[in-house]
Amino acid sequence: MSVTSPASLLRKRVMLAHGGGGQLTDDLISELVAPRLSNPYLDALDDAARIPMHGGEMLFTTDSYVVHPLQFPGGDIGRLAISGTVNDLAVCGAIPQFISLGLIIEEGLELRVLEAILDSIAATACEAGVRVVTGDTKVVGKGQGDGLYINTAGVGAMRPGVRLGLARIKAGDVLIVSGPIAEHGLAIMLKREQDDIVRSELSSDVAPLGGLIESVLRVGGENVVYMRDPTRGGFAGVASDLASRTGLRLTIDENMIPIRPATRYAAEILGLDPLSVANEGKVMLVVRPDAMNDVLRSLREHPLGMDAAAVGRFERHDDGLCEIVTDVGGRRIIQKPYGEELPRIC
Amino acid sequence: MSVTSPASLLRKRVMLAHGGGGQLTDDLISELVAPRLSNPYLDALDDAARIPMHGGEMLFTTDSYVVHPLQFPGGDIGRLAISGTVNDLAVCGAIPQFISLGLIIEEGLELRVLEAILDSIAATACEAGVRVVTGDTKVVGKGQGDGLYINTAGVGAMRPGVRLGLARIKAGDVLIVSGPIAEHGLAIMLKREQDDIVRSELSSDVAPLGGLIESVLRVGGENVVYMRDPTRGGFAGVASDLASRTGLRLTIDENMIPIRPATRYAAEILGLDPLSVANEGKVMLVVRPDAMNDVLRSLREHPLGMDAAAVGRFERHDDGLCEIVTDVGGRRIIQKPYGEELPRIC
Repeated sequence: MSVTSPASLLRKRVMLAHGGGGQLTDDLISELVAPRLSNPYLDALDDAARIPMHGGEMLFTTDSYVVHPLQFPGGDIGRLAISGTVNDLAVCGAIPQFISLGLIIEEGLELRVLEAILDSIAATACEAGVRVVTGDTKVVGKGQGDGLYINTAGVGAMRPGVRLGLARIKAGDVLIVSGPIAEHGLAIMLKREQDDIVRSELSSDVAPLGGLIESVLRVGGENVVYMRDPTRGGFAGVASDLASRTGLRLTIDENMIPIRPATRYAAEILGLDPLSVANEGKVMLVVRPDAMNDVLRSLREHPLGMDAAAVGRFERHDDGLCEIVTDVGGRRIIQKPYGEELPRIC
Repeated sequence: MSVTSPASLLRKRVMLAHGGGGQLTDDLISELVAPRLSNPYLDALDDAARIPMHGGEMLFTTDSYVVHPLQFPGGDIGRLAISGTVNDLAVCGAIPQFISLGLIIEEGLELRVLEAILDSIAATACEAGVRVVTGDTKVVGKGQGDGLYINTAGVGAMRPGVRLGLARIKAGDVLIVSGPIAEHGLAIMLKREQDDIVRSELSSDVAPLGGLIESVLRVGGENVVYMRDPTRGGFAGVASDLASRTGLRLTIDENMIPIRPATRYAAEILGLDPLSVANEGKVMLVVRPDAMNDVLRSLREHPLGMDAAAVGRFERHDDGLCEIVTDVGGRRIIQKPYGEELPRIC
């Protein structure tokens, strides 16, 4: 008889943490999915795939949304589904244009809730300048879902003249974040776990960023070398990933990271590190140092980027580490969250 | 105090039958979804949307798959997800090219099941000549899903020179079905409800039809005026829809509809009308009468179309009815199924 450790037993089944957007999610994708479906478009493993169409290039992306609760301060699953897909297209340099909408509804969902979410989808699509052009509706039995899951896929033409990519990042480049972090994840956790106890003005930042990104690219042009939206895994997930994948040292000044007081308070109550909490209306940009001021100015002129800040710099220590210089002058390494910080946050 | 009938109470929540692909699904889409998201691309309400890209036209479609069980005779949810999206693109006249893959996994799913389904996705994509280029993975807690739900979206360029549309159908045109019907739905129901009791050789017809449709279009050209894959709602759903939307009479010869003996047997055991049961590897084509023989020949030369048959004809009674002439010379009207014949069949 062989002895099997609990860990390896667990590994034979999918765990909740496999969906958290951290190292375990990466493992699931890189070990199970990527080797089987390998092709040049997928292998880039970006938020959106660059594919040829009619002699030009377009982007294609998808995300499923399983957020609980369906409605939360600042938004709902519908606003989230449109914004998330629009943002994936926009940060990869595309013009968000067309969206598909797949609904998986649990039997018993109140029609007024469904109607409110559809209203929100329509309003967010309008705000983002995209059109929902195709869809699908499935209903599953009670106890086989949780109200509503949504999948959106999106397509858009590549913006002409935009060149974005990890390979363009070099020492000296500056990391910018478009506004206060961690509001989406914490607003949802607070609603879910402390709704009756804690009064908070914290609300999700969920918003479509196509317009903001368009104005930044107009100003920054080729000096904007990389963008990503810090969703699951949060600021820390993107920052540590950028360092490890470029092989450069990324030094972050903790003082400069915009975080609202209500966010700090919520993070303390919930015992969470705001750096690892999901955002749904923020973009992290890597820009050439000469363009930093212009990019910051154009971000701050937009309602969704008023609190943008330069938070870090890539340096020529080729160790691929992301180091944060803390308030009190200390230094620590930021790592990619392992499993999930927060289940079903998006 | 007002009196509320049970029916109107029920109507305030989504019912399982809203997802059945029948009249209730149509009502949900046309009353709740379409008015809110209205735009010229969506309003066509075809299986795929025709959208402009880089000066050409492309098709964009999506479907979610919630089939239970995940693995069934003849296929699994992975083969279904690739085939379904490929077929939606192909019947609308596009070249299926790129697929997105969204996984919603229930905590506890065995990794070996997930691996088998990913293998099946890879094999079916290869068979269909499409590439999975982008994806997303979410995990939900136990009891908030049912093993695995999959969403696929797909894009493809329009085939040059192909003109398909309901508006092209006219009196005299012939309805062809590419092979024996009702095998997908019945194989699944049999597996689900009678697995321990009934031995059957029935298996799902799930298959990607891009190649079959390409060869038909090469032969039939503009004489192929319309195509659709009879999934939820089955043969009856498509036939009744064609009659009502063209306003023509569609007369079907029951004798000509290909149904295998094992299918008839399963339908009798389960008390189901095979005409209303879902297919996942069949296409219904409307062709000009002069092209009928060539189209039938090209279908029958392909492994997925060997039992193709001409089953009906559009006539100049402008009543929009679909009438079936039965074995014994009787006549009855085929109607669109109201709610769902079979839950979670795809």
